Amino acid sequence: MQNNTMTDVMAAAVKAQESADYAQFMINNLWILVAAALVFIMHLGFATLEAGFVQKKNVVNILFKNSMIIAIGLMTYCLSGFNLMYPGFAEGSSGYFAFAGFGLTPPEGGMTAEYADYTYWSDFIFQAMFAATCATIVSGAVAERIKLIPFLIFATLFVAISYPITGAWKWGGGWLDAMGFYDFAGSTIVHSVGGWAALAGIILVGPRAGKYTKRGIRPIQGHSMPLAAIGVFLLFFGWFGFNGGSVLSADPELVSLVFVTTAMAAAAGAIGAFFTSFIMFRTYDLSMVLNGILGGLVGITAGADIMSVTDSIIIGLIAGIIIPISVTMFDKLKLDDPVGATSVHLACGIWGTLAVAIFGDCDDCGTYGAQITGIIAIGVFTFLFAFILFFILKVTLGIRVHEDEEETGLDIGEHEMAAYA
Amino acid sequence: MQNNTMTDVMAAAVKAQESADYAQFMINNLWILVAAALVFIMHLGFATLEAGFVQKKNVVNILFKNSMIIAIGLMTYCLSGFNLMYPGFAEGSSGYFAFAGFGLTPPEGGMTAEYADYTYWSDFIFQAMFAATCATIVSGAVAERIKLIPFLIFATLFVAISYPITGAWKWGGGWLDAMGFYDFAGSTIVHSVGGWAALAGIILVGPRAGKYTKRGIRPIQGHSMPLAAIGVFLLFFGWFGFNGGSVLSADPELVSLVFVTTAMAAAAGAIGAFFTSFIMFRTYDLSMVLNGILGGLVGITAGADIMSVTDSIIIGLIAGIIIPISVTMFDKLKLDDPVGATSVHLACGIWGTLAVAIFGDCDDCGTYGAQITGIIAIGVFTFLFAFILFFILKVTLGIRVHEDEEETGLDIGEHEMAAYA
Amino acid sequence: MQNNTMTDVMAAAVKAQESADYAQFMINNLWILVAAALVFIMHLGFATLEAGFVQKKNVVNILFKNSMIIAIGLMTYCLSGFNLMYPGFAEGSSGYFAFAGFGLTPPEGGMTAEYADYTYWSDFIFQAMFAATCATIVSGAVAERIKLIPFLIFATLFVAISYPITGAWKWGGGWLDAMGFYDFAGSTIVHSVGGWAALAGIILVGPRAGKYTKRGIRPIQGHSMPLAAIGVFLLFFGWFGFNGGSVLSADPELVSLVFVTTAMAAAAGAIGAFFTSFIMFRTYDLSMVLNGILGGLVGITAGADIMSVTDSIIIGLIAGIIIPISVTMFDKLKLDDPVGATSVHLACGIWGTLAVAIFGDCDDCGTYGAQITGIIAIGVFTFLFAFILFFILKVTLGIRVHEDEEETGLDIGEHEMAAYA
Repeated sequence: MQNNTMTDVMAAAVKAQESADYAQFMINNLWILVAAALVFIMHLGFATLEAGFVQKKNVVNILFKNSMIIAIGLMTYCLSGFNLMYPGFAEGSSGYFAFAGFGLTPPEGGMTAEYADYTYWSDFIFQAMFAATCATIVSGAVAERIKLIPFLIFATLFVAISYPITGAWKWGGGWLDAMGFYDFAGSTIVHSVGGWAALAGIILVGPRAGKYTKRGIRPIQGHSMPLAAIGVFLLFFGWFGFNGGSVLSADPELVSLVFVTTAMAAAAGAIGAFFTSFIMFRTYDLSMVLNGILGGLVGITAGADIMSVTDSIIIGLIAGIIIPISVTMFDKLKLDDPVGATSVHLACGIWGTLAVAIFGDCDDCGTYGAQITGIIAIGVFTFLFAFILFFILKVTLGIRVHEDEEETGLDIGEHEMAAYA
Repeated sequence: MQNNTMTDVMAAAVKAQESADYAQFMINNLWILVAAALVFIMHLGFATLEAGFVQKKNVVNILFKNSMIIAIGLMTYCLSGFNLMYPGFAEGSSGYFAFAGFGLTPPEGGMTAEYADYTYWSDFIFQAMFAATCATIVSGAVAERIKLIPFLIFATLFVAISYPITGAWKWGGGWLDAMGFYDFAGSTIVHSVGGWAALAGIILVGPRAGKYTKRGIRPIQGHSMPLAAIGVFLLFFGWFGFNGGSVLSADPELVSLVFVTTAMAAAAGAIGAFFTSFIMFRTYDLSMVLNGILGGLVGITAGADIMSVTDSIIIGLIAGIIIPISVTMFDKLKLDDPVGATSVHLACGIWGTLAVAIFGDCDDCGTYGAQITGIIAIGVFTFLFAFILFFILKVTLGIRVHEDEEETGLDIGEHEMAAYA
Repeated sequence: MQNNTMTDVMAAAVKAQESADYAQFMINNLWILVAAALVFIMHLGFATLEAGFVQKKNVVNILFKNSMIIAIGLMTYCLSGFNLMYPGFAEGSSGYFAFAGFGLTPPEGGMTAEYADYTYWSDFIFQAMFAATCATIVSGAVAERIKLIPFLIFATLFVAISYPITGAWKWGGGWLDAMGFYDFAGSTIVHSVGGWAALAGIILVGPRAGKYTKRGIRPIQGHSMPLAAIGVFLLFFGWFGFNGGSVLSADPELVSLVFVTTAMAAAAGAIGAFFTSFIMFRTYDLSMVLNGILGGLVGITAGADIMSVTDSIIIGLIAGIIIPISVTMFDKLKLDDPVGATSVHLACGIWGTLAVAIFGDCDDCGTYGAQITGIIAIGVFTFLFAFILFFILKVTLGIRVHEDEEETGLDIGEHEMAAYA
């Protein structure tokens, strides 16, 4: 070593620095990928949750829709969605709409200086796993009476056009981002977007036959509580990737905080729903507790990276309280939602976005004005888009199965197959 | 570069070192988080395993309990459990009991010099996921006849008080740690703790109606073997996080060894149970093989980081042999355990803890004396705590459902809902 | 710092470099372990997929087989398979067969210079999780009529001998590797190997009673589409580890590309099967879409690290188109495969291996000659091995259950137990 010149030594230090930086890049990138896989498993969570909450005669149909939605989501996001959501708005752009062109255009080796923390491919796959989520939310809400093909057309166009446009307003650096709207992992951008579209679908497709009768609301029980519970636990599991991956790096402080706030909000959601549903219905209602967990998760999603543990518990608790109230309210309005998707994703999505303004305590945490603007702007756009699209489908292909088919079940009607032989 | 001074170059080397250290911190921390997520999914494993092993009429109840247990576990561990289990015993303390106060008190940014390998938040969430496990074990053992609310009260107090106190004796640096007791990931501290409480509950709640008749033991079959199998595979999957994460870093040598010993013990457990149950019952008994896998996993847990592959296979094999023998023995004693939790978690938990003394080959691997002391001390404390608590609940609220309700099923009785509509 | 000598500074730079290199080693190793856990969960995927596709009366049997296969796979791979598949062919060896001895022989600390990116243990456990896969594939194809014990003997010998020998030809650095055969993660080495053995089994065990009647082919519906769907989603999830881990490091560029090609091929597989099965059968066939996803995954497996996104979509789409055609063809040939394993793993495994020659665009991407040689050589060896082994079992123990048992179901016949009480 005595013969090392100063230049040699500096070169060794620089190389060591590069190796260390590359190690950090590797770990950041790997976390985005693992998180993408966790978000993927949420699609199984949705599939089983929805399958559990529908009647036995409509199970093949819901599984079919969920299997196709993930496929459609990945394909459309690859074809256009990614470039519509992350268009790289031109400087001075108003940030409402831009499109970076069809297909994926990875930089050399899938990496670029822009991606200090992960590759182009990791960015795409993580975002693509998110994209299909909003369509899945709709799937559950309109289950048991919507026609398959119109629904799949809806899902394709909704994921291809509506979701990325509103997503770009914030995550693509658009106008909502510029005005300070805060939505960490998508209480609004993903969940309430799914919820608004679900609401539009519910209004246009109408309630299931026999649900709202002259003698009152007839509960239509889901056919398998184990499937529903499997769904909720898998969604909880996947949410560690959904929220944890949204840190967009493996930053130890942030990712671990996000794990804690996410889990505590879910736990508090269960407890909020437990007590509220007992007070309201005088029974220990499993579906309320399950949806309470999901409500807590949706509620924390907008601010999972900025909340204290106490905040996250309060947010989750309120989300859990919202669930049975919201489910009851939607039922009173004769808006029939077999899985409670509007309560979980729309009501708690709005709540979580507002909670950022209430509890958030940082410079860019979203004022009331910014949060409400975001909720309304994205809500109006999404609801109108979904309503018009469902309406066009209604007057052209029709969106509702024949009443005989509804009676017999969509499994035989659409798929000539029973879920349980 | 010619103009670099010695000081510049040293600063570059120091900065490179810091970046490399931070990269290691990132990866260690990420592994604890991923492991926490894996331990979380074990709760779905328990939920489906127990649901599968109970009768159709009690499925909603078991799912409800498991959904609430994870919520209660996270909440109580956050409120007091974490600070009771890791109180930081004062120097010179006897190491039996200390409490660091209510709520979480993270250092600035969630990190501190104490946590060289992971953040405060990661530490909490990983440990919190463990905490609820012991209550889940009880849930299965007393299933199909215990009242919901008394059980939830039991679970809350057990997780809040009993589990952290005995846990502190070893993992919190208490008196068992000082005397050389070795329990890597919790054969005793988690599994037999759950098992002892389960035993206390079984004794006090009594067997299910019709199980032990004058004409002998009537097997009460579980209602869904697919659910049970899903549970076991998910538990196996999650155990990679349970044991692997207990290394408390991403240390390549240790974590990969732990993966191997864990998997091999599980495999050997299946094979041990396969042969033993065939010899005993002359049939190929799926529930024995499934519990054999779990027995192998519980057995290796105390020493997963110090065993050779051969050791791990022997430990798993013996655990698998224990399962059918233990199940038969508990049945002969008229201790009715619908899911075999006492055999899996108590019998194999004790076995695994003893195995450390038998096979362990390192300086701090636990002598027979230390291991037996730990087993007995934790066993006595836990059994008494659980027995007294269940007893108080029995004479106040009552812990057993009415025999009509047991006949009809707890799903209708406690939840006014059937698992399968 | 002024007192630092040149030697001190260089030592600091060297130490920083070592720390950075170790950080990279940690992350590479951790990814292999996480990937191994993901491949493990594929065994639950297979178990639920196969359980869903068989009749209610044979569910315990299929779960039993799958539980034992993972145990047998791990044990035999530990005993001999690993050293047969990675024997370290001697220089100048013809690369057909070598054996490095029984048991595992880890280097000091489980690590060696040979394992720059991961430990010996990680290498073993990742490969061991793969090994059992090929037996699982057979399990589904011969379900509902094969005797349990002969099947388990078959599985043991197949995993212990046949799979590692052909695997060594490529992944162990044998003759197929030398001639340029390319199979990234095992379209041929794992999937078609399972498929060929399945075909041999199907031929020798014969179709299920009542499947091929004088009045034509009678479809025998699977008993639970939710279980089948759970299986496919879990397999998709696990495939991120199967293909992503096969990079054998956490290389950001390659692993993230593999995630994208894997997911896109699966999505395209669903879409290909959707349209093709609609054209062929005029219905929306859930089992075809589910198998289309799996077909796409098998198809991309041979070249997941070298394909463009467009390539991966085309490969998946064609795999999806193959599925209903292949299923129909096997049925026409009266080769009865309850789960479609031959179509998914054999037909699409061959397709994926050929696709490397068609789409591959790199120096070592496998010529048509090399790919076809590999497909045929491994196919012939595997088929003959499996055929002879099944044949010996047939003439000795018998491989088919009695027709009464087939009628009643294997659950009662072999296990004295019903899947659903």
